[in-house]
Parts: sequence; C-alpha cells; structure tokens
Amino acid sequence: MSLNLTQKHQNIIDTAVKALHERTFFSHYPENPTPEIYGETADKDGREKYKNYLNNNFNELLQENPVKWVGQEESPYEQQPLGIKYPYFEVDTLVSRAEEAYHQWRKVKPSYRAAILVESLERLRNRFFDIAYATMHTTGQAYMMSFQASGPHAADRALEAIASGYEEQTRFPEATEWEKPMGKYNLKLSKTWKAVPKGVALVIGCSTFPTWNTVPGMYASLVTGNPVIIKPHPKAVLPIAIVVAEVQKVLAENGLNPNICQLAVDAEDHLITKELAEHPSIKLIDYTGGTEFGNYVESLKGKTVFTEKTGVNSIIIDSVDDLDKVVQNLAFSVSLYSGQMCTAPQNFFIPEGGIKVGGETVPYQEVVQKLADAVSGLVNNPKAAPHILGAIQNPATLERVKEASSVKGKPVLTTCDFTNPMFANARTCTPVIYEVDATEKESYSRELFGPVMLIIKTKDTNQSVELAKEMAMNYGAISCGAYTTDPVVKEHIMDEMSLAGTPVSFNLTGGIYVNQNASFSDFHVTGGNPAGNASFTNPEFVIKRFTWVGFREPVVG
Amino acid sequence: MSLNLTQKHQNIIDTAVKALHERTFFSHYPENPTPEIYGETADKDGREKYKNYLNNNFNELLQENPVKWVGQEESPYEQQPLGIKYPYFEVDTLVSRAEEAYHQWRKVKPSYRAAILVESLERLRNRFFDIAYATMHTTGQAYMMSFQASGPHAADRALEAIASGYEEQTRFPEATEWEKPMGKYNLKLSKTWKAVPKGVALVIGCSTFPTWNTVPGMYASLVTGNPVIIKPHPKAVLPIAIVVAEVQKVLAENGLNPNICQLAVDAEDHLITKELAEHPSIKLIDYTGGTEFGNYVESLKGKTVFTEKTGVNSIIIDSVDDLDKVVQNLAFSVSLYSGQMCTAPQNFFIPEGGIKVGGETVPYQEVVQKLADAVSGLVNNPKAAPHILGAIQNPATLERVKEASSVKGKPVLTTCDFTNPMFANARTCTPVIYEVDATEKESYSRELFGPVMLIIKTKDTNQSVELAKEMAMNYGAISCGAYTTDPVVKEHIMDEMSLAGTPVSFNLTGGIYVNQNASFSDFHVTGGNPAGNASFTNPEFVIKRFTWVGFREPVVG
Repeated sequence: MSLNLTQKHQNIIDTAVKALHERTFFSHYPENPTPEIYGETADKDGREKYKNYLNNNFNELLQENPVKWVGQEESPYEQQPLGIKYPYFEVDTLVSRAEEAYHQWRKVKPSYRAAILVESLERLRNRFFDIAYATMHTTGQAYMMSFQASGPHAADRALEAIASGYEEQTRFPEATEWEKPMGKYNLKLSKTWKAVPKGVALVIGCSTFPTWNTVPGMYASLVTGNPVIIKPHPKAVLPIAIVVAEVQKVLAENGLNPNICQLAVDAEDHLITKELAEHPSIKLIDYTGGTEFGNYVESLKGKTVFTEKTGVNSIIIDSVDDLDKVVQNLAFSVSLYSGQMCTAPQNFFIPEGGIKVGGETVPYQEVVQKLADAVSGLVNNPKAAPHILGAIQNPATLERVKEASSVKGKPVLTTCDFTNPMFANARTCTPVIYEVDATEKESYSRELFGPVMLIIKTKDTNQSVELAKEMAMNYGAISCGAYTTDPVVKEHIMDEMSLAGTPVSFNLTGGIYVNQNASFSDFHVTGGNPAGNASFTNPEFVIKRFTWVGFREPVVG
Repeated sequence: MSLNLTQKHQNIIDTAVKALHERTFFSHYPENPTPEIYGETADKDGREKYKNYLNNNFNELLQENPVKWVGQEESPYEQQPLGIKYPYFEVDTLVSRAEEAYHQWRKVKPSYRAAILVESLERLRNRFFDIAYATMHTTGQAYMMSFQASGPHAADRALEAIASGYEEQTRFPEATEWEKPMGKYNLKLSKTWKAVPKGVALVIGCSTFPTWNTVPGMYASLVTGNPVIIKPHPKAVLPIAIVVAEVQKVLAENGLNPNICQLAVDAEDHLITKELAEHPSIKLIDYTGGTEFGNYVESLKGKTVFTEKTGVNSIIIDSVDDLDKVVQNLAFSVSLYSGQMCTAPQNFFIPEGGIKVGGETVPYQEVVQKLADAVSGLVNNPKAAPHILGAIQNPATLERVKEASSVKGKPVLTTCDFTNPMFANARTCTPVIYEVDATEKESYSRELFGPVMLIIKTKDTNQSVELAKEMAMNYGAISCGAYTTDPVVKEHIMDEMSLAGTPVSFNLTGGIYVNQNASFSDFHVTGGNPAGNASFTNPEFVIKRFTWVGFREPVVG
C-alpha cells in the first residue's frame, strides 16, 4: 500500500474514532443512491453486473482449488434459482488456510490492518449497486433498503468496527519505561505490550441482512488481527461474496495472504456450520440468526462468541399528541420489509381504558381500529407499498403468518395477500393483526418473525411496561417504542426497560422509525438480554477478540 | 459527602486514569511501613488492634440480625485458632438485601460512586497495619509482604479498578443531539445513554491473598453500580472483613445502604459458596482459587464470570551475563512466601548442553547445582530467611511438597524443614528441588502449589520454549521468566509466549522478581490461557459488568 493512501486512510480512521465518542450523526458512505453521488451509470451498471452473475460461477475469490462449485440461492421476487455457483472447500482446508494466514496477519500492525480494511470499504463503494441487486434477489428487500442496508449502512458499521478495534489496540503504549524509586536507587524496567489476536474467527451470516449483520463481526475480528472465515446463509451468499472478494483483492495487492478472509459455503447436501463452529482451531464466532442455533453457538466451550439472536419487540402506547401521526409511523414500522427486521415491533401494548390524546381519552377499540386502518391504508397505496414491503425471504415466514391465526385472540386484519406490480411472482405478505388479552401470555411471548402485529390489551400502562420488560428479560428484545407525554411515565419506562437491556425510542412520528439504527450513534442490540450477547459496536465487541500481554526487562546502564 | 471531598477524590481518580494509560510507575499508597509515612505508633496500634480482635466477635459490620456468629481461622504462625467470630446470614438474606441495595446504588452517578469508593480506600490507609497483622496470621505471609500486598498494593489495585470503571462509564456522552440532514429538512433526535449495572455481584476470595485478589473484582463491580457480596476463604476472613467494614461506614455516612457491600462467611458446618454462586440473582462472579472450582464457576449459566485460577509458571534459561546474580534472583522468587504466590515459578527449563554465560558454556549440572546452592544459601541465612519464607497457609501444601518426591526424577534438595526464630510453632517449608527429564511430561504438567521447584532438562532452548508454551496453553501460566542475551531468542520467546497469553520478564536480576506485579502497569493474569479468564485491570475487566442502553426521542420544535 502506498504511503499517501495510508495517510488518507488514517484520516478516515481518526474521524471515525472521534465520531464513535461524539455519537452525533456521522456517516462516511452516502446513503442516497443518486447519480450525483455514485455516477450516472452506477445503477444500470450494477444491475448488469448482477445479471452477469446469474447462472455462472462466482470467480472473483482468490481461494484456490475448490472441491466443487455449489449454490442454492433463489430470488424471492422471481421464486426462481439464481444459478450462481461458489467454490466449495472442506472445513479442514478452510481452517488450515486460515491458521497459516493468522501468523502473517497477526504480525501486521493494528494501524496498517485498519488502513487495509478501510481501503477494502473504499473499493466496496463502487460495488454498492451490484450488492444492492444481489441483496434484493436473495433477501427480498425492496430496492432502497437493499442499497442502503447492504451498501452504505453496512460499510459505515464496518468502519465503526475498524475504528473501535483500532482505538482499543492503540489505547495503551506499545512501550514505556517504568521507573520505581527505591530510596537509594531507582528500579528501571523497559516494558512493552502486545494486543495478541485470539485466532481463527468464524462469522455466521443470516438470510435477511447478509452484509449489514456480517461485516461488524468480520471487520472487528480482522482489525484485531484474526483471520476470518465467512459462512453466509446458503440462501444469501452473493452480497457478502462480493465483499469478501474485494477484501481479498486488497490483501493480495498488499502482498498479504488472501486467505486472511475466506468465504465458506455450504454444499447443497451438506451444511458445514456446525463442523466449522466446533473445530478446535476456531476461537471466535460471530452469529446472527435464530435463537435455538444461537444458544447452541453460545454453549460451545473454549470460544469467544458474539450473538444476535431474536427478540420480542414491544410498543407501549400511553399518551400521544397526535394519534394519526403515531399510527402512520407504527404502520410503516411493521410493514417495512414485511416485518423481517430484527428491530421490527411485534407486541403493541394498549391499556383497556384507552389512551390520552391531547387532553382527551381515546377508547382502546378506536386506537386498535386506527392502527389497522393505518396499516390498510399503507399496504393499499400502490405507489408506496411495494417499495416498503419488499418480498418474503423464506417460505417458512409465510407459514408463520398463517399460524399466527392460532393465537388466542381476535383477528383484526388477516389477509396478507399482496401483488407486486413489477414482480408478479414475488413471495409477499402484508401485516396481519390480532388482538390478544394480557392474560394470554403464551400467545405473545415468542417471536413471530415476519409481518405479524399483536395488540395486547392491558389493565393500564404500568402493566404494559411490566409485560414489555418481562418479555425482553425472558425472550429478548432489540427495540422498544414508547409513546407518552407524561415525564414520570417516561422515566419509569426508561428505568424498567434499561433493566431489561432494551433501548427505547420515545414518541417517534414522521420520517424516523423504531426499526432504524444509526451506526456511530445507536448501539445495535445491547447484549443485556436474551436477544444477543453482543452489541454493534461497543468496546466489548472488539476487546474480547484479543489479549493484552506484557513484556519487561531491566534497563541496562 | 461534602463537595470539597468530592473534588479531592475526583483529582485522585483523574490522576489514576492518566496512570492507567501511561503505564509507567504509579502508586497512590506508599508501600513502605515507615513511621515517617504512617505515623510513629501506627505499627504498634495495628498490632494491638489485631490482638483485640482475637477471641471476640467482629462487630464493625453494619449488617443487621445475624443468624449466629461463626469463625474458623487459625494462625499458620501459631497453629492456634484465632477465635474471631463473624456474623452469619442465610444466602437468601444476603441476596435479598443486595437486591434491595442494587436499586439505590445503580442510581448513584458513576463519578459519585467512584468518589465514595476512593474515600473508602483513604480510610483504609489508617487500617493498613491492622490488616497487615490480620494477613500474617491468616495467610502465613511474612510481615513485610502482609503489609504491602494486603495494604498499599491492594489499595492501588482497587484504585486501578475504580479508575478503569469510571473511565469506561464516562467514555460516551450522557446525552447528545443527533441531527441527520435529509435534504429538505433535518431529522433531530435527542439521545441519552445509560451504563446499566448487571446486578448482584459475588466475589469469592482465596486463602493466600485475601485482600489483594479480592478488591479488584469488588471495586470493579461496585464502581459500575453492582452491589457486592464478599465471600472470603473461611481461613482468611479478617483482612477483608476490615475492608468491607470501612466501605460500609463510608456508605452509611453518605446516606447509602451499607448492604451495597456485604460480607458473607461460611458456617463451620456449611459452606455457602456454591449456594451463592448458583443463586439466579447473582449476575457477576469474581473468583480466585483452585482450577477445579474455578472451572465450575466458569460453567455456571447466565453469569458473567471473572477467574484467576492456577498455572504452571516457567523459567527459561538460555544465556546470561552473570549466573550468580541470576540464581540469587531465582532462589528468592521460589522462596518468597514459600512458593505460595500464583506468580511463583515452578518449572525451570535448562538445556542439557548447558547455558552460555558471557562467552563460555556452563554445563547443565553446574547450573542446577548453582540454583540449589543459591536456594540453600538463602534459606540458611537466619537474618533473611524468616522474612522471605513466611509460613505455610494450608497443611495440604505441606502434603503436596512431600508428594513431590513421587515425580519421576532426581532429588536435588528434599528437606523442607525450617524453624522460624520468632514463631517456634510456625508451619514452615523451604523449597524442595527435583530434576526431571523433558520426556517425563506428566511430572511437570500440573501445578504443585507451594515451594516446589522442578528443573527440566531439555534438548535445547527451542524445546524449553516449546514446552513452556505448551504448559501455559494447556494448564495455564501467570508468569514466565526468561534469560537470554540473544535478541533472536528473545523475540522467539516473546512471540511464542504471547500466543500462550503469558507475560514474560526477561533477564531479571537484583531487586525485581518475576513474582512481582505492579498495579497501573502490569496486567495481572492475561485471560488468554487456562490460568484465568480475566485480567487486573484491563478494560474488559470492568466493561463486562454493565450494559450500554440508549434512549432517543425527536427534538420538539
């Protein structure tokens, strides 16, 4: 890497470290896919590149001698296989290549590692549109979310991890002289410290956010000197394969072993995740996905594990200024990507006595109706709905929505049929709504991943808070939305939900939603409840990836 | 707490935070027990206070309504019971009191918590001599170590934990305004963050360093807002009981619940550690002690656990400038507190072809003889030996020294008899030495806690390093001493031992020893091998005790 590049990268890193601590708005990668920013032909080029991948071998990786070529992706918009094949390797091959790369990568200085990784993100900027189409046709996200979440937002989250890892590794001096007065003389020791990386890292991706949820762990492990093996969900490989390819190119250009960052795909007939995770040489594991597998990963001995599993997210409605604005905001939150975000709300707690709107009480049933009307209005808006809902990634999600009718409650909206005007064959589903009584705990104390909205009738706001807290503590929660105009109630909600390790967004209306989560400002998942044991990106997320080891020797003379 | 006190304390905290990052020599509490520093009558007063505790109830604690009074301490110097009784409480009482205290303590601001804790250390300064005698007659440490380790060194380690916890909790802003440009308008959110303490903490102490090994976890949990229950080893209660009493007094004087910090003792017929550790309300556990129980503590589900267990510490001898100085230094290291320090060396790796001394080769057998002579010389020095060796804390340690004769090797020094001139009935033992061949791995691949020195004859230094690394990786290591004049060998040792998470002291001679470990500079235990999963005090040691939780709300207007 040329030195002028390194200075440019150091500036990016320094700015990012500063942003980490200010936690005001900061973004290095623009989120708007406009021609002014990304170039006149960027969108068209990206779409073409995506099309060229279809029914071909993905040959951008620098991983040699695959056993075979495999692939099982399908577009939720077309419900057709993509036909893309990726190189398949045995687990032992992947691990031994990573171990070899470890002894090169760990000796690269943290600042240089950070610069190389920033360079990979700068390259990725030119791949945001390819990645956007790859994300659409693997996850079912709508175009805008595909671009933003998998491109600039993911790159910002990766930069956040680089900045945090760089900061933690440079927090203590590399060397110092320790001089202790002993009365008649001074004892002098020359001391040095090393941040020693833990070893081979595994990152297990999910099917809905294949880059956004993968790059934080991936870049956190890399910047702290650990080689990584990226094991994407078999249905969402292409977006992260492009990322891995760019990292490998930058590594190779700088004389480094591209196996510092490897892609590992499942064979059609053979899932390799458990074999990888249980391999004694795997020291670090990042995981995003379902709770059951996440608990298994957390239970593995001798590994440092970072998880984002699932949760039951709550909305607490106590009192509002403008109910119409509130229900529009909430309808958007449950409809966005058809409820397939880990931050999407599910349980809406509303007191049976209704809520205060301005000075007036609006009865419970009217609030429910307004919520339902807002959802109906949104999904029946042909201009907006397809761009908000996207498609359903997994057929199992559709099944789950059907099963939601078995909750002990009252159906409010039950049809989820929707036709996407651009993709007639898309797998789609709009939010369904059921009313449940607070006593029917079994019905709402689990995650119903997908567009399912449960309205839970409570005795009062105190009970709403109590139940939201209980759900978060027992089943996990990644987000919570609360509406109250009463400062005492607000303080109570903050205090109770803080004990459940759950961040709270208060009184959101307009263009900001409970699902959204800004890098360099919002910690994503807290680690403080069963929804996950890690957080993007708090200091713990990086410092557990290396060990401080000190050396000392008397100063001669 | 008066405001001028707070400013004084804030200055101490700020200075300590700075020292954490400089890692040069820093000490807030003077280690020399001289009248100039601590007062003319301090030593005499301390001894009298200690004597007054004997055969009495320890009534300084502010914990009400004990079930009974219990105690089982014995002086290793007298081999007689101390007769001190402590208040005994049921586990449920301790935990429910801690839970109640939690909701008060967690709401105290981190800076105020830190100031209160610093005040407790300032008070403790006046108890250093009481604690010294208490430590002597529970642990068997000699007077000077008792004073330094349990008094000023422990207080400095506690201050280190306070400083680190304070820094981590104030690293992000309490509140900020987040403003995102949206083209035609700006989205504005007011954001706040809380460092939410995890809950009730348990600190399990050991019998040899009852304050030094207990206060880091204790103060780390307290400064991050968690109430603590201190469960000392039943044979070493008094030193830490004095510390807990001082903390409780400061809490009470400041209008806080003294149960924020409780002492929990075992009944004579009923050990309560497991019951405490397994209690679902216990969220944090710090543990120092044997590996078997440590592994049990680490295996408990739903707890954040910090351990310092045992290790097999190595000395690697390759080449030296002055062999006499080296063997004197090493003889002191194995004799200090009769090898009962977790940092004491056990396995001495010496190549069969001998070592380089200056330009000459000194044969293996001569090096062994010099080591043995140095140990004999030291233990036969009536002026020095009693003050270095101290007494043996646990009769089981004596048994272990006897059993050491079963190693497959050659006895070099086998008698451990020693008479302390001041304490005729003291339980004592001087270092024994056995020679073992490198092939007899079983003999040296376990910790023989106590004054046991194994000399392992290796093919060459490469094998010495390989074995020292293997021992550290498989059985843990807390320290490593290496002697080499060759920079290539030195680099090799640093690299290999860093991979085993083991700090290395090179070429120590004169008044500094591999066993010693300075707060604010040396990380104690790295967490990177089986000797323990935590480190005094790296950032990980404090940040795992709380969760960052964020709150946000649109800015109105």
